Amino acid sequence: MSGSIHARQGLLLVLNAGSSSIKFSVFEVEPGGAPQERFGGQVEGIGGAARFTVKSSDGEPVGEHAWPEGVTVDHEQALHQIDDWLNAHLQGRAFLACSHRVVHGGLKHAAPVLIDDAVLTELEALCPLAPLHQPHNLAPIRAMRARLPNLPQIACFDTAFHRGQSEVVQQFALPRAITEAGVRRYGFHGLSYEYIASVLPQVHPRLANARVIVAHLGNGASLCAMQGGRSLASTMGFSALDGLAMGTRCGALDPGVVFHLLREMRLSPEQVEHMLYHDSGLLGMSGVSNDMRALRARATEPQVRQALDIYVHRIVREIGSMAAVLGGLDALIFTAGIGEHGVDTRAEVLQGCRWLGLELDAERNAASAACITRGDPAETPSAWVVPTDEEGMLARHALDVLARTA
Amino acid sequence: MSGSIHARQGLLLVLNAGSSSIKFSVFEVEPGGAPQERFGGQVEGIGGAARFTVKSSDGEPVGEHAWPEGVTVDHEQALHQIDDWLNAHLQGRAFLACSHRVVHGGLKHAAPVLIDDAVLTELEALCPLAPLHQPHNLAPIRAMRARLPNLPQIACFDTAFHRGQSEVVQQFALPRAITEAGVRRYGFHGLSYEYIASVLPQVHPRLANARVIVAHLGNGASLCAMQGGRSLASTMGFSALDGLAMGTRCGALDPGVVFHLLREMRLSPEQVEHMLYHDSGLLGMSGVSNDMRALRARATEPQVRQALDIYVHRIVREIGSMAAVLGGLDALIFTAGIGEHGVDTRAEVLQGCRWLGLELDAERNAASAACITRGDPAETPSAWVVPTDEEGMLARHALDVLARTA
Repeated sequence: MSGSIHARQGLLLVLNAGSSSIKFSVFEVEPGGAPQERFGGQVEGIGGAARFTVKSSDGEPVGEHAWPEGVTVDHEQALHQIDDWLNAHLQGRAFLACSHRVVHGGLKHAAPVLIDDAVLTELEALCPLAPLHQPHNLAPIRAMRARLPNLPQIACFDTAFHRGQSEVVQQFALPRAITEAGVRRYGFHGLSYEYIASVLPQVHPRLANARVIVAHLGNGASLCAMQGGRSLASTMGFSALDGLAMGTRCGALDPGVVFHLLREMRLSPEQVEHMLYHDSGLLGMSGVSNDMRALRARATEPQVRQALDIYVHRIVREIGSMAAVLGGLDALIFTAGIGEHGVDTRAEVLQGCRWLGLELDAERNAASAACITRGDPAETPSAWVVPTDEEGMLARHALDVLARTA
Repeated sequence: MSGSIHARQGLLLVLNAGSSSIKFSVFEVEPGGAPQERFGGQVEGIGGAARFTVKSSDGEPVGEHAWPEGVTVDHEQALHQIDDWLNAHLQGRAFLACSHRVVHGGLKHAAPVLIDDAVLTELEALCPLAPLHQPHNLAPIRAMRARLPNLPQIACFDTAFHRGQSEVVQQFALPRAITEAGVRRYGFHGLSYEYIASVLPQVHPRLANARVIVAHLGNGASLCAMQGGRSLASTMGFSALDGLAMGTRCGALDPGVVFHLLREMRLSPEQVEHMLYHDSGLLGMSGVSNDMRALRARATEPQVRQALDIYVHRIVREIGSMAAVLGGLDALIFTAGIGEHGVDTRAEVLQGCRWLGLELDAERNAASAACITRGDPAETPSAWVVPTDEEGMLARHALDVLARTA
């Protein structure tokens, strides 16, 4: 858990680079205080018609750029645009450090790490475990090392929070040689879960050591069973495909389906993989959209209704599996886009979890209040809406690593 | 559910033909009575050094045959051997019917069916859904139709019992076109589950309409959530790979693992499929054996202990998921080889299910008594050992179909 006392003052840069976007945030650090976000922005649409936008911490647009029609923007150009904007708007102030979200830390990294040549080589070696994400996470690290060789760069891993899980939870029932070659459940969304774990004692004192399931429901979605700030299990496994149904991803799938699609439908492995990542989930089932708001607006259409029902059913089922790991359930936490704003989704999930003692408070849910169940949370199982803050977690980790390595 | 009043008298033949064995049973039918097994036997080792054995209903060996060394026996020869033995030992009595276990009935068949040309064509069209099993199930049907064209033959499906599940349970989060092409959760072990469902009211009156999870733990293994004699969900999905870890099968696996094995480990789809069916599960994890008795005898060895722990953990997790479908749990039923005889496995599963209110009675469990939990089963959740009888179910189905079609 982060939260060291520190005497730093200055700015932190946080970067979250994906396949088609680079998000960034600028945090202001005062001695002894938590980092405060000043700006947050992104380049979206990399590889196509890209767009750059920045907002201040109160949500006001403070920067924007659109490239000429027909221009294809790559990651390098996107990073340049961010760099240019920062140079123009930070009055020459330098950064204390840059903190990067890196999807995969492998087995070794159970905590954020200061990046040097050896670490970068290690992280590159993990690319085969996350070929769609890891290379995009590492490219800006390399670019910034070339440009600002003295700037401390920190890698924060989406897998790290889950590394304390027992071997029994992490392993698939595969031949040992395959497991030893790194094919195991890593779990993802770790920065979100770590942030939630860090604020649970403030959400309610009982939650500090309770049996908690966190539902991170965004574009990607997973559950984490946690207790006392530690991850005990997660629905995401080896890749970002497993577990819950998502916007465009299938979630848990009988591996026999893959062989059937290869053999009987004569698809290539690349076609099947593309289908499971991009054409499945809510989009594939509904035939309409991967966007929860768009689907809720058309929920009277039978295919849309069924897609929503399957989405919720899968969450309810996996909550049962997670409760088995915890030996029961004290609290369910909803977070990320759909978790924080999806009033109907939360209501339907809680309806399916009545057997665990959760009783929806419809009014509080409609208002997205902190606690959305009836009864005294100190006495009965409860459900909560807790906004996540992965960027804030990245900033706190950077400060911690700087303090450790000073 | 079978159990029609009938006036038949005579013999029923039951066949269960797999990839490397053909099992058969002979049942005696008296008017109005349940079929009684007279003989049961099998040809094992088809495709290699095969062996034929028959036992009477009290377990006495009454027939046996070993082919000369170096002779490879195929399915046709195995069926001939069974036919020869039956001709020699049944004093010329003819069969009323032959009942076949057929793994896949597709979406259409929610009940056993009398086989005619149209049905056989339909079932052949389902071979791509179960390429490792369905062709072997159908071959003896064709062979017997050629030899005894007037003998009624009945197909009983391992998928049929699950066909009443809701669409929400049966569908994967895949594109609709893929779902509509038949890629969905079919569920298997249906004859075992149907048998268990049929005897639950005799096991304890409370179980007739209770929320029940049946754990069919044999070479293959799955769970079924049932209530009032109906399947609500099963851990087995599209193929026989999904769900629980098994003797040599992986059970639930992140589909991303398949792509990784294809791309990074440069295996062919056939090699990966073979690994997941034959080299995984208890065998692959332990590196020792797929046989539960052999593993329990070596449970102090760390790799064996871990394999057993993962096997049990996966059962406990999936029980949580099944309980979510049922909205709670009244009774857990253990059946099939490991379920009926695996004292330690049952104890460890129940230890992991204490959160559901199950309290192991160690003495009753060691004795494989019917009820193996403490407390009054009418008042508290309970666990039971109930021997399954798939052959008996096949015989009962044959009588029912004969009565329906008389």
